[in-house]
Amino acid sequence: MTAPDTYFADPAGTPTEDGRFYRVDQLAAVEIVSGLTLRPIVSTDTMLSFARYEPFAEAPRHAHVEAQIFVMLEGEMEVELGDEVHAMRPGDVAVVPSWLPHRATAGPAPAPAYQLDIFNPPRAGVLEQIAADQPKRSDD
Amino acid sequence: MTAPDTYFADPAGTPTEDGRFYRVDQLAAVEIVSGLTLRPIVSTDTMLSFARYEPFAEAPRHAHVEAQIFVMLEGEMEVELGDEVHAMRPGDVAVVPSWLPHRATAGPAPAPAYQLDIFNPPRAGVLEQIAADQPKRSDD
Repeated sequence: MTAPDTYFADPAGTPTEDGRFYRVDQLAAVEIVSGLTLRPIVSTDTMLSFARYEPFAEAPRHAHVEAQIFVMLEGEMEVELGDEVHAMRPGDVAVVPSWLPHRATAGPAPAPAYQLDIFNPPRAGVLEQIAADQPKRSDD
Repeated sequence: MTAPDTYFADPAGTPTEDGRFYRVDQLAAVEIVSGLTLRPIVSTDTMLSFARYEPFAEAPRHAHVEAQIFVMLEGEMEVELGDEVHAMRPGDVAVVPSWLPHRATAGPAPAPAYQLDIFNPPRAGVLEQIAADQPKRSDD
């Protein structure tokens, strides 16, 4: 069914900031655990992050206040959400509500796996790591 | 640089809802304008939507209060963000702040283009269209 013409109606508000373009291969990488690398983009309320898992790399079972959604882009992964375990492949999506324990392991094929993570709000643990990776300011 | 061990620390909160798994090819489609189809997943604060543009299909210049980020998955697109025009290809990301006018046109290659849209909060125009597509309740 086609949406009403109002979907692309004229703008009625004032932009809050400039738009930005990125290329995934130009983003700075953060290694979170051995074999798991994130390339995050931080926006006002949302963090988008390209995650690369080396073969069999694992994000161990954990939970966080930030709501997360992730999309499988390439490769295969075994994913645990609460008490459910699913084999995920490209085009699969997992919705991870606030504080729901989850785990992800690349495999069973011995290949890297790529997923796109969306955190709302931006995940504090990643922001801390980005800040820690910044060159320190010198007062000399 | 590797993040501190606190990144995967033990959970300290109570899950707000169950986790959910989806497959993109099982999502209901919403045709927004001719040649542009969305497959949305609605979460608490975030909407994720797989968008398919037929060759040369266009989302005309428009703006909305919801902040948007989109990721090119397949194909090519010409994208206007404010006064900037970029050719986008897979792995490219555009951050579209609240009320920033933007446009997207599939091409110049005569092929479909796929992008992944993230709206925060969920885009009202899409929610309205999902509601309009629901079978009407009968009181008989």
